[in-house]
Amino acid sequence: MKPAPAPAVKALVFDVFGTVVDWRGSLIREGKLLGRRKKLQVDWAAFADAWRAGYRPAMARVRSGELPWTKIDVLHRMILDTLLEKFALRGLTEDEIDHLNRAWHRLRPWPDAKAGLAQLKRRHVIATLSNGNVALLVNMAKHAGLPWDCILSAEVVHHYKPDPETYLGAADLLGVKPHELMLVAAHKDDLHAARACGLKTAYVTRAREYGPGVKLDVSREPAFDLHARDFNDLARQLAR
Amino acid sequence: MKPAPAPAVKALVFDVFGTVVDWRGSLIREGKLLGRRKKLQVDWAAFADAWRAGYRPAMARVRSGELPWTKIDVLHRMILDTLLEKFALRGLTEDEIDHLNRAWHRLRPWPDAKAGLAQLKRRHVIATLSNGNVALLVNMAKHAGLPWDCILSAEVVHHYKPDPETYLGAADLLGVKPHELMLVAAHKDDLHAARACGLKTAYVTRAREYGPGVKLDVSREPAFDLHARDFNDLARQLAR
Repeated sequence: MKPAPAPAVKALVFDVFGTVVDWRGSLIREGKLLGRRKKLQVDWAAFADAWRAGYRPAMARVRSGELPWTKIDVLHRMILDTLLEKFALRGLTEDEIDHLNRAWHRLRPWPDAKAGLAQLKRRHVIATLSNGNVALLVNMAKHAGLPWDCILSAEVVHHYKPDPETYLGAADLLGVKPHELMLVAAHKDDLHAARACGLKTAYVTRAREYGPGVKLDVSREPAFDLHARDFNDLARQLAR
Repeated sequence: MKPAPAPAVKALVFDVFGTVVDWRGSLIREGKLLGRRKKLQVDWAAFADAWRAGYRPAMARVRSGELPWTKIDVLHRMILDTLLEKFALRGLTEDEIDHLNRAWHRLRPWPDAKAGLAQLKRRHVIATLSNGNVALLVNMAKHAGLPWDCILSAEVVHHYKPDPETYLGAADLLGVKPHELMLVAAHKDDLHAARACGLKTAYVTRAREYGPGVKLDVSREPAFDLHARDFNDLARQLAR
């Protein structure tokens, strides 16, 4: 069977949390480091999952207009403050809580991400398109050595994904038409929303995003332009 | 005499046109290439100077509210359209005019810029803070190999420098306080405006920005935190 021709894209934008970086593994690791230092007994996997679970409801409050524009660093902190209580994380100084909140700035990439992005960068403009705020994404890239050409964020357009303003705003800022821009993401809802705005779409499998116990639907979707095992596979497909 | 201690800055933002790249030399070169191809007799130095001279008045129309937000690519094209007439540049196709307009996406860095930025990137977040639009800056970085951590532009805040929203917006997006951010520029007015917003300031000498015939005032200004000969010199001073 002949492979489908790669769509003619000029720039790639990437979802970040879960697609580029392993937020769950990274948060568990950061939690364990803190726990050892402060002698805390915490189920850090449950803690990481609870923190992430608060993310969509927090953004929904901004998307609905209940909250004015609020960046993810602040939303993460609002959720964290409730989790400190819930998980009985006591005795942390303000600096320690702030450091924990910035664990999101230090998330670690999936094993293929750095080399795959470097490959993709040779032929395309590669940019983030994340709900994470600019500083978070800049610090993450610096920390993990991610070679972005450009950091784009919901923060720049004051809309969270999947609002259409994020996808269309990214195309406008990068000076390309929507169909010349491809969203790379491990999340089907993100890709469907981008597709509805006219973007090309590449689904990347991150089957372990929610840990070994959660079986995700990683089946092919005919609506998406490309399906890739990882970023190296995506680079190979786009080089055809 | 003991050197002054380097101010404690977390991130550096850079003016681009004239500070990082040699717009005049680059435009003259692009003009000559076009002139040879199309057999045009044009004073390309005068053409480059006229194009640049239209830049501030065009932005002033946006800053005053006479024009709605308009990106530099569009302002450059408005000026170019008047210059095609004035310099009798005839017989260009729309594609050729568009390619000429995008000469600003292909401006070449001053000889020290690429290595100096790589040095500065080791210790600091380095970002553009230019009136150029995002696509222009991304394409320029890609073309010239400029290793920015982040592309910030007037386009992101819908205000042109020297409006305070540009400097304060950059600090907010990078997650630093104004006094933790340093503007690097070859233009004293830009630095004075940044300083009024609380930013640190580094003046870099680009004595030949307007060509060999124009003598610029490159004298020291006590108000600025640092004075550097070039980006390598700046990296040395900030590493002290």
